[in-house]
Amino acid sequence: MKQIEHIGIAVKDLNASNILYEKLLGKPPYKFEEVITEGVKTSFFEMGTSKIELLEASNADSPIAKFIEKRGEGIHHIAYAVEDIVGELKRLQQEGFILLNEKPKEGADNKWVAFLHPKSTGGVLIELCQDREIELKEFD
Amino acid sequence: MKQIEHIGIAVKDLNASNILYEKLLGKPPYKFEEVITEGVKTSFFEMGTSKIELLEASNADSPIAKFIEKRGEGIHHIAYAVEDIVGELKRLQQEGFILLNEKPKEGADNKWVAFLHPKSTGGVLIELCQDREIELKEFD
Repeated sequence: MKQIEHIGIAVKDLNASNILYEKLLGKPPYKFEEVITEGVKTSFFEMGTSKIELLEASNADSPIAKFIEKRGEGIHHIAYAVEDIVGELKRLQQEGFILLNEKPKEGADNKWVAFLHPKSTGGVLIELCQDREIELKEFD
Repeated sequence: MKQIEHIGIAVKDLNASNILYEKLLGKPPYKFEEVITEGVKTSFFEMGTSKIELLEASNADSPIAKFIEKRGEGIHHIAYAVEDIVGELKRLQQEGFILLNEKPKEGADNKWVAFLHPKSTGGVLIELCQDREIELKEFD
């Protein structure tokens, strides 16, 4: 894990939060994307080599809807950039971390993504992400 | 605000969490620091241009002790690097953000720091930080 790729923040109303974050960060989002398979609408703000990703639930079963129902708006996950997500998942599983996804799936921003269970990481939902332009290694 | 300076994570046991994060991030912390005025013991992990800061309460009145009592271990705050913390605090107050510190105070890692109230930021405790080597501008 080399750097913080982004911080994901759960919001109730993406439009309202985009306005708030534009005031906070002093710049508008550079991208919007809906990930239908994940039930989220997102916006991205550039922050040097990292990003802030705002996430609004696009349906009631979305993990973001459940998160907000339980904890309210706030920081949802930290995403770390990796170059070999398959290798990193194997390494982390061997180290005792619990994988929420055994195999990477397609996430926002043209990434392969997989999550680690907060029970195994001290209460932090952790995402690994690899550019989809880098070929995914074979699973054993 | 130019970049994510660090992410602060509240932990119960700094030694145990240092071991966990060394496994997660693949590297040990590069620094330890106790900030007596804030009631915290900290460790820092380098992550490209950002850092992960682990925070353990050093007394029962510490904000970290209260956070963990209420929400359990997890992400405590996001810190953004600024070059003129006094100017940024003024700008953000004018934009409607609620300042938890009207004046910057001395934080860990040789920084001037100040926090924004999560009520005004969509549930995220936000820290601004400026290197203490840069001269602090005058307050009006």
